[in-house]
Amino acid sequence: MRFSHAFFPTLKEAPAEAEVVSHRLMIRAGMIRRLAAGVYTLLPLGVKVQRKIEQICREEMSRADAQEVLLPTLNPAELWQKTGRWEAYGKELIRLQDRHGRNFCLGPTHEEVITNLISREVRSYRDLPQNLYQIQTKFRDEIRPRFGIMRGREFTMKDGYSFDRDESSAERSYSQMVEAYKRIFTRCGLTYGVVAADSGTIGGNFSHEFMVTADTGEEAISVCEKCGYAANIEKTPVVISLPKNEGGEMEKVHTPGVHTVEEVSSFLHLPSEQITKTLLYMADEKPVAFMLPGHRELNEIKAKNALDVTDLCLADSTTVERLTSAAVGFAGPVGLREDVHVLADSSLDGKGGLVLGANETDHHYIRAEEGRDFHVHAFVDLTLAQEGDACPECSHGMNFRRGIEVGHVFKLGTKYSEALDSTYLDENGKAQIIIMGCYGIGIGRTMAAAIEQNHDNDGIIWPMPITPYHADVIIVDMKDADCEEVADKFHADLCRLGVEAVLDDRNERVGVKFKDADLIGFPYQIIVGPKSLKEEKIELKFRKTGERKFFPFDTAAKKIKNYVSKEIESS
Amino acid sequence: MRFSHAFFPTLKEAPAEAEVVSHRLMIRAGMIRRLAAGVYTLLPLGVKVQRKIEQICREEMSRADAQEVLLPTLNPAELWQKTGRWEAYGKELIRLQDRHGRNFCLGPTHEEVITNLISREVRSYRDLPQNLYQIQTKFRDEIRPRFGIMRGREFTMKDGYSFDRDESSAERSYSQMVEAYKRIFTRCGLTYGVVAADSGTIGGNFSHEFMVTADTGEEAISVCEKCGYAANIEKTPVVISLPKNEGGEMEKVHTPGVHTVEEVSSFLHLPSEQITKTLLYMADEKPVAFMLPGHRELNEIKAKNALDVTDLCLADSTTVERLTSAAVGFAGPVGLREDVHVLADSSLDGKGGLVLGANETDHHYIRAEEGRDFHVHAFVDLTLAQEGDACPECSHGMNFRRGIEVGHVFKLGTKYSEALDSTYLDENGKAQIIIMGCYGIGIGRTMAAAIEQNHDNDGIIWPMPITPYHADVIIVDMKDADCEEVADKFHADLCRLGVEAVLDDRNERVGVKFKDADLIGFPYQIIVGPKSLKEEKIELKFRKTGERKFFPFDTAAKKIKNYVSKEIESS
Repeated sequence: MRFSHAFFPTLKEAPAEAEVVSHRLMIRAGMIRRLAAGVYTLLPLGVKVQRKIEQICREEMSRADAQEVLLPTLNPAELWQKTGRWEAYGKELIRLQDRHGRNFCLGPTHEEVITNLISREVRSYRDLPQNLYQIQTKFRDEIRPRFGIMRGREFTMKDGYSFDRDESSAERSYSQMVEAYKRIFTRCGLTYGVVAADSGTIGGNFSHEFMVTADTGEEAISVCEKCGYAANIEKTPVVISLPKNEGGEMEKVHTPGVHTVEEVSSFLHLPSEQITKTLLYMADEKPVAFMLPGHRELNEIKAKNALDVTDLCLADSTTVERLTSAAVGFAGPVGLREDVHVLADSSLDGKGGLVLGANETDHHYIRAEEGRDFHVHAFVDLTLAQEGDACPECSHGMNFRRGIEVGHVFKLGTKYSEALDSTYLDENGKAQIIIMGCYGIGIGRTMAAAIEQNHDNDGIIWPMPITPYHADVIIVDMKDADCEEVADKFHADLCRLGVEAVLDDRNERVGVKFKDADLIGFPYQIIVGPKSLKEEKIELKFRKTGERKFFPFDTAAKKIKNYVSKEIESS
Repeated sequence: MRFSHAFFPTLKEAPAEAEVVSHRLMIRAGMIRRLAAGVYTLLPLGVKVQRKIEQICREEMSRADAQEVLLPTLNPAELWQKTGRWEAYGKELIRLQDRHGRNFCLGPTHEEVITNLISREVRSYRDLPQNLYQIQTKFRDEIRPRFGIMRGREFTMKDGYSFDRDESSAERSYSQMVEAYKRIFTRCGLTYGVVAADSGTIGGNFSHEFMVTADTGEEAISVCEKCGYAANIEKTPVVISLPKNEGGEMEKVHTPGVHTVEEVSSFLHLPSEQITKTLLYMADEKPVAFMLPGHRELNEIKAKNALDVTDLCLADSTTVERLTSAAVGFAGPVGLREDVHVLADSSLDGKGGLVLGANETDHHYIRAEEGRDFHVHAFVDLTLAQEGDACPECSHGMNFRRGIEVGHVFKLGTKYSEALDSTYLDENGKAQIIIMGCYGIGIGRTMAAAIEQNHDNDGIIWPMPITPYHADVIIVDMKDADCEEVADKFHADLCRLGVEAVLDDRNERVGVKFKDADLIGFPYQIIVGPKSLKEEKIELKFRKTGERKFFPFDTAAKKIKNYVSKEIESS
């Protein structure tokens, strides 16, 4: 590819809205352009990288016996109504009507469509297991699209689905996919971790995320350096041991103007962990109360999962006042309206001597006790993990890291196969529910994550297996016909050997060419200038290290070919 | 791939709604399944073929210096409003609103988005020419989706766009694409023709279609066997010479109950070609009249283009009666309401002695003459071509063929670049409008067309370059462990040599395996049975000819590899 003919519109500056480095570099290097919020065009350099990641996915899927399909983007509403997600998915689901007024959504994920397919095609245990995947454009109307193609509204995903006859077979499919995903991200040249995660709107029994560690990651992960345990903080179990409180009769105390945990703590001369806070929420439009130790925050994902609801939001002050008959800041479980469902954090289980809001303005209770003075519906883990919390596996204090979720695997169980009546006949002719797993890789996000992990101040430093081109042959002096001729021939030699190379034949100063080469991030820069000609040597500069090597004309192309092959194989 | 693990759900019968052979065979061979009207899932065998066609497209696009991009499916309404197509595209355009109420459509084609991109990125003549393409899912809400993936509402397309500084450069880009398309369809193993065509909703100066000849094709083509001229009949110019009529004074004659051309012809003892029929239409809600020789039909595409309107439909009887003040069957240009725009077919230009409806029930005029008795706004070619019409190039009588449109190339001129302000600065720093071309291949339709051209009563006969697998290794007797072992080893040998092979290891009767092999259409069937074992020979059956060959075990795999390579190279 001649640079002078190529559509590589590089830029000196990125637009102001590009917050993270991958977004800035993808725009500057001419890989993407924005069409609308969260909607991007991939330019030739972007497509090249995307196709390589897709190809790696295909090879590893095939190696893991998964077969490629292509499911429609247009999903009929009926299927989504059957699983309840037509409502549950909320505004992220893009809906439309066809010319006949029939309702469709644009697939944000494809459990419904593929389970429907399997329910129609699979008859017997002999037809199982099946593992099908696709590489396709997905649509999610994100409330806050950002970071370029990292969190877009239209994006390319590799999504896969497994169908098994029983738990042990489903477990095998899940492990196979975990292994395949590890190979994929390793082959893409990424440093990543596999962490326990929440299943979100996909649902199912449990899930793992593949996290590329990067300071700019949207996700926080808790990691135990001692035993290797890692989880999304949304999912990290929290075990807190609270100090023993003083027991005795419950007593109402006057606490004028004392609203917050800090104020109560200082008024009563007690540490905040000895105060219990009660948070009122609306869960699918019904009131709920969450009780937590005063020094910790609510993990809303855990709360949602504990209640099995779709929508959870903090109650507004009017609602709080209506439910407690008191000003905001004095909510508590004692004498709370009966229709409020009360959940308490596990750390409060069996605790007496609690300090609680009294549901009366300017009053708190002290020495309250569950079972005697009030009742909770259940004790569950509701607490958001903090750095330093005890590892759930080995109790060692955990550290926090930031990460980019590039893959997610789910053990779905029978959530979708039950809703869509996906069964098989076993050896005895008895219908059994199929057990499912689902697996996803964000192709564009993987590309962005690779940049987050591989760049410097000058631009991108592509890992060899996913670089748009392996090498950039730079003509130093366009006025020197010999220089151009040698470079041209060398470029042709490289292409003939299967090295993907660009020939920078633009009528530009060599400084511009070097800057663009660094920005776009070709792993190898091959510099053909007067010096090369005189010495009959090709100069190779490694983008990553800045190291330079010189090879005689006649062996240089083969040498570079070998370097490329080795780097691809070793990743 | 082991057949026993594969997701190849073959069927004995196709559903009743599958009208054409490709649709029936794609369903029966387990390549596609219907999700909704015009919305299909591609199963593994379908995806395999699609990916091969895509790969051929990519290679030929790259050879023709076109670069791959990926434009968004979500197209902002504003761009389509600028070109006027937000309205003009009608109900085929699928529209939706995002969570903020902003209007988008799902791209049915991408002139707007890519022209907008180019208008932002191209500055100077040095940035031109550019030729960008993508392979992407398109959405068109067809009024009558049919024939499986041949005319679907969601389908994969290779669409490309060229941008040039002047006509001669645009001409070169157009020719390059025509040549690339020829190579693509040839490499796919198709017999096709390139025909002049109408530009439809895409617009522009002129266009050519790539037509795969097939009896079931939706399109009719006129072909001149003498000079090679070919065109879609929608586009075929018609030159009719009518006999000279008797002149003289115009006269109104009483023609009671005589409505149709045939009735007038028999009443007046004149051949139908000497009767002039006047058809009333509504064109973008305004009345128009078309005059034609009585023996020919109106070509509505020509009529639409002549008027440059979006919507053209036959006037209903109430409208006809209102416009003519007469019953249906007596419309004519003499004394017609002045607001009716009248176009006459070129064959009537300069003709006197016309027989016309008199705009009065039960009356006709005879010996009417344009210019004297009435006026037409223009004489243009309005006639639908018929088999036997004179070739516009050499006047030889033309034949009709049926075809499937698999590709379409358009010289767009400046239609989109003007609307979207896509300009470049020339050598003198003066802004000039960019000249465009656009180019499309229906990937799924190409697959269906290949089946229409390559099948027999037993199933598909894949051309080697796009077959899902090259060979099917059939184990004749699953109870014979030797048989299975040899077949297994042979399958592995083939795969190692790069022959894409299936191993039919199902516990099925061999008759079922043969039937499925014929149905799916593997070019080579390799039969491993007791006879092979005894003679230490592999039996190869060619799907296309039924011919059988036998090769010794040790050389068979290499031999087959060579056959495959040769067949791919020779296409």
